[in-house]
This record gives sequence, C-alpha cells and structure tokens, in this order.
Amino acid sequence: MPHFQFHLDHTDANSMARVGRWDTPHGTVETPAFMPVGTRGSVKGVWPHQLQEVGAQMILANTYHLALRPGEKVVKELGGLHRFMNWNGPILTDSGGFQIFSLTELRQLDNDKVVFKSHVDGSLLELTPARAMQIQEDLGADCIMCLDECPPHDAPVSRLEEAVDRTTRWAQLCRDSHQREDQALFGIVQGATNPKLRERSAQGLLPLEFPGYAVGGLSVGEAPEEMYSTLDVTTPMLPVNKPRYLMGVGRPIDIIEGVLRGIDLFDCVMPTRNARNATAFTSQGKIKMRNLKHQTDTGPLDPECDCPTCTDYSRGFMRHLFTVGEMLGPMLLSVHNLAFYQKVVRELKTAIMANAGMEYRAEFLARTSGGK
Amino acid sequence: MPHFQFHLDHTDANSMARVGRWDTPHGTVETPAFMPVGTRGSVKGVWPHQLQEVGAQMILANTYHLALRPGEKVVKELGGLHRFMNWNGPILTDSGGFQIFSLTELRQLDNDKVVFKSHVDGSLLELTPARAMQIQEDLGADCIMCLDECPPHDAPVSRLEEAVDRTTRWAQLCRDSHQREDQALFGIVQGATNPKLRERSAQGLLPLEFPGYAVGGLSVGEAPEEMYSTLDVTTPMLPVNKPRYLMGVGRPIDIIEGVLRGIDLFDCVMPTRNARNATAFTSQGKIKMRNLKHQTDTGPLDPECDCPTCTDYSRGFMRHLFTVGEMLGPMLLSVHNLAFYQKVVRELKTAIMANAGMEYRAEFLARTSGGK
Ligand SMILES: [Zn+2]
Ligand SMILES: [Zn+2]
Repeated sequence: MPHFQFHLDHTDANSMARVGRWDTPHGTVETPAFMPVGTRGSVKGVWPHQLQEVGAQMILANTYHLALRPGEKVVKELGGLHRFMNWNGPILTDSGGFQIFSLTELRQLDNDKVVFKSHVDGSLLELTPARAMQIQEDLGADCIMCLDECPPHDAPVSRLEEAVDRTTRWAQLCRDSHQREDQALFGIVQGATNPKLRERSAQGLLPLEFPGYAVGGLSVGEAPEEMYSTLDVTTPMLPVNKPRYLMGVGRPIDIIEGVLRGIDLFDCVMPTRNARNATAFTSQGKIKMRNLKHQTDTGPLDPECDCPTCTDYSRGFMRHLFTVGEMLGPMLLSVHNLAFYQKVVRELKTAIMANAGMEYRAEFLARTSGGK
Repeated sequence: MPHFQFHLDHTDANSMARVGRWDTPHGTVETPAFMPVGTRGSVKGVWPHQLQEVGAQMILANTYHLALRPGEKVVKELGGLHRFMNWNGPILTDSGGFQIFSLTELRQLDNDKVVFKSHVDGSLLELTPARAMQIQEDLGADCIMCLDECPPHDAPVSRLEEAVDRTTRWAQLCRDSHQREDQALFGIVQGATNPKLRERSAQGLLPLEFPGYAVGGLSVGEAPEEMYSTLDVTTPMLPVNKPRYLMGVGRPIDIIEGVLRGIDLFDCVMPTRNARNATAFTSQGKIKMRNLKHQTDTGPLDPECDCPTCTDYSRGFMRHLFTVGEMLGPMLLSVHNLAFYQKVVRELKTAIMANAGMEYRAEFLARTSGGK
C-alpha cells in the first residue's frame, strides 16, 4: 500500500525493540508511539493542539462510541473524523469489538454477526464485518481494525478457540468488503494468554496479508507477567516489516515491556483517566495529587518534565484544584500525564538506537519503585 | 497612589461612557474592561494563558471561597494569588461580603463583625473589617474591596439603611487597617435600588478618598431597568477621575448599559457558567448548543468571532460534545464566551472614541434580538 510505508530504522541488538517510521495519509508516525484515546471524538479534558504540543503524533477514537453518538453518518457529514475532532494527524479507530463484548449485553453471536444492546439507550443493534468496515470508512481514520471477538481472558479454551476462529473468519470478510485505499486495515490476533491459540490466530490472519497487525485480548484482567509472556510468543509470529499494535495497553512499564517485545503502537485511556482521578505519572513514580503533603509545595509536579503544567503550576495549586473540584485540575494533569507517556516513548527511542532498551527498563524501574 | 494612576482618555460626547487606562503593579488595564471570574483561583474550564489570548487584561478571584479553601495563608505560602493562579496580570479580589450574605447562614451581625456558618463544612467563622483586609493582603491581589454588607434588594428600607451605614463604618475600619501600598482599596457603594440610600452611601464613602469605587448590591434579583436607573443616579456621584467598578454584572447588554452610565470595570461568572450549560453568546444573540438543528452544521459557532473555538471547531462537533457530556464542550465554549465578552468591550471602546456609544447599543440590540 503506497500510503502506508513502514520504515524500520533500527532494531535493538539486545531485545526485539525497534525504532521505525510509519507513513500515513495524515503524516508520518515515529515508532514506538503512544496514541492518546479520544473515545467519543475528544481526548478528555485536552484541546487537540495540546496533544500535538506534548508530542502525540497519532490518536485513537472508538468506533463503538462514535457509531452510537453522534453516528458515523453525522461524523461523515461533518467532514470525517479529522475535521470533526480538529486533529489533522493520523487517527486510528478500533473495531468496536472490545466495547461490544465488554460493555453490552449480547443477544446473538454467530459466524456472520453479533447482536447486542446499546449501553446508551438499550436499543438492539447488529454488527457484521461488512458494517464494521462501512462505519470505519465513514468515520475516515487512517488506520482501521477488523471486527474481532474478545471473550473474557479466563473463558474456557473451547470458547477462546471459537473466538479465534470467528475473528479469523471476520477478518477475511472485513478485508473483502474494505474499499478505501487511504485506510490501512489491520488484522487482530486473539487467543487470550494461550500460546497455541495465539499461534492459531496468527496463522489464520497472516495469509490475508494485512498492512499491519494488532494484538488484542490483552490487558483485560490477566496478570502483567501473563501479558508479557503472551507477547513473548506472539510478536515473533508477526511480520518484521509491518507495524504491530498492542491494543489498550497500558501502564508506562507495560509500554516499555511491550516495546522490548517488538511492539510499535500503543493506546490507553490511563493517562487521562488517572488525571481525572488526581493520579500523576512522574519520573519518580505515581503521585496522588490530593495528598495533604502537597498543600504548600511550591515546586512543579515533575521537575524533569517540561510540559506546560510542570512549567507554570505548583503542586500546591494543583492539590487545591483537586480538593475543591475545579475542572482545571484534570485539565492540567491530563496534559502532564500525556506528556509523560510521550516522554517515555521518546526516551525508549533514544535507548533503542543505542541498543540499550533493557538498560532503560532497569533504570525506569529503579526510579519509579518498580513501575508502580 | 503612585501605583494606580487612572488616565481618562476620552468621554463619549453623548453619554457618560469613557475610555481610560488604569495602571496597576501588574500592568495597565484598558477600560472599560470585563474581568473573568476565577472564583476559587481558576476561571472554570480555561487555562490562564487562554484568558490572555482572548483579550482579558484583569481577572477576579473570590476572597470568601479562597479563605475557606485553601486558606489565604496557603495562597500566601504558594507565592500569592498571581503565582498561585499563574496569572501575571492585574487581579481583583472581592470582599467576601456578597458570598457571606448570599451563601451562608448568619449568626451574628453588628457594627464590628459578622459571624456565619461556612457553606463548605458548617463551621462557625467570623469576619471583621480588619480581618477582611488581612485576608486580602495575604491573597495579594492588585485591587481589593472593603468589607460590605449586601442585604436582599427587597429588604425593608430601614434594613437597607442599616446596611449602608454599617458598610460605611466598615469602610473606614478597612481603610484604617489596610497596609499594602501595592494594593488599591476600593469602597463599595450600597443602597439597593433606592436613590436616597445610594446618595447616603456615596456621601459616607467619598470623604474616605478611596482610589476607586465599586457599586455593589445590583444584579441581585432586581429588574434590569431598576439596575440601570440606579446607575443613572449613582455613577454621577462618584469621582470622575477614579475607576468605577460595577460588581457581578452581567449580561452583555448590562455591560453596555453600565458603560453608557460611566462604569469602567465589570466582572461576572456568566460567560463561563453559561458555557457549562451549553449556552453560547454570539454576535447574533444566544444559542443553545444542544439543539438538534446544530447536528450536522459544519459552520463555526459565531462567524464573526476569531477565537480558537470558532476558528477550528464546527457547531456540529460542539453539539456532539455537549450531547455526550465531554469536558471539551464547556472548555471550547468558555473560551468563546469569554472572547465574546472581550469583543464587546473592545467594540465599546471603539464606539466611545467615536462618540457613538449609544449607536453601538442600538446596533447590538438590533442584531441580538434585544440583548436576549
Ligand atoms: Zn509535566
Ligand atoms: Zn468564538
């Protein structure tokens, strides 16, 4: 696909970590990259230009939520996602599968479709692979996802296998109906934490020659070590010369662990969700902003951060904002937390170029109390 | 006071409207000026640098709210209000009187003090004129207010007269205890909508030779016409060569009417509060952003506005944000509404310089359905 060249610039000599550049119709993404999540067309509490200012290059929006409200046809009439959200860089939409299987009540699930109740108004909705493509074509992201099935990670193996096979079948149907050449359609590898099922999933999807592959079904309740060991067996099955995207992950340490295992793209609501809960990610680990000890602290949230929040505001002021419930608290902290995530991936790139990905992890763990 | 020169540049030939410049230790304010309100140290939903970007020159913070949380001593330890809020321009604090008389349950009120219950935790607090000065000196605004009493506008005349006399007495006590030379202390004229009481109040305060005068006790439930007719008799009693501040006012049309009657400074929560309620002020009048008719509207909120919101976002996207309850909705609309207020005062200045204040009012009323 001419629009979506992936250039692999360097692979860490001591891990699978790699540095690359991925061209999209809305610009090049330097990988590894972390994508802030704009669930309903807005990264909560942040102006789009602020995302750019903290270094975000690509963002994610949720197909399920946008298809419900305002509806993909409305987004299309308003000029597509880029114009709608006022984000002129690359955008990725997920398939909607994760939300359907986690947020809604299922009514029917077979090889052709899933029928479920909207979590907004309880109405009965149907999703098919073809419709998942039509919705994502109307939304107009640069990178879109095949419809996948995400069963609970602790479901019986037979159930997980069924989901893998359905995800493979749906991937074929998605590929067949997808039209827009300015969109990269990714296949999603499922199979929970079961290496055999991961292999089954990858082997089903690889012949379809997607321009990139996502790893789904992780960070859904399993232990971090299970996620890492699943990646250990999964990423080696994926093409070296195509971008790999780990869906919905995660904590900063999870991103580091994922990068060391050859993942290129990440997304997670954690930086903004934690910001709304008054939890800061800093170079010294997590900080609870409501803590009384910050009350008269004139220092910045994170002395090693050069984001607008750390440049201009004191910990004491931020504590006050959270204590009284001012919107500006989550706003300031969301910008910082997103800046922190971007800093981690920038530092990772530098480390990988020096073949020092493993050393970066060790150093990060040491200064952040084990990544907590 | 050397810090607080007020330069009167021009007075409208056909009204009492005037254009001036007021020097403060944190910069010069071009009057007439509208001050956004940062009740608890933050103008809700807006980064301080955005206030500057839309043209705000001076902002207000509420003494009552800040004295309760985080407490004036904490603000002082955090470097004073300017550093605390990250606003390096002029700041005004009110006396706290308005909130005490409107938000709290009074326990005692005499010539020396008012005792009331905190609306936050119900604790019993006492405020005296001297303490009102100490709090405002600790907060450190450029312009501070004498402690005043604000009874309900429809209280019996005897009660209103009592409040006027107490406000005068308290003003004397405030002046006596106020120390900081880098703060301008204003007297507050009370007297509800009663011309005789307004005269009694002004005559009590004028001998104290404050560097500026506030008009309090308006926009508290009386009809707009009563407010205007009260200003008709009140501002002429105030010194021509000192700034005049109309507290807590108001709608755009109220600001225009106030300026035509010789008022220089205004503050109101209306632009940001209405933004949170999805109501936009525009050059064509008010707009309810949740209305279905905006659903697929690709146009800007206000075609005559050049604020970041109107430059980059569609009405359709903004409607969506309010429909799903995204924080970005109030954030975008607060910036626009504040920009709109600043545009009104800028346009007023231009009109006054051309002796056309009255024409501006007529033109404004014509295009905004009578200021509604
Ligand atoms: Zn920061
Ligand atoms: Zn605007």
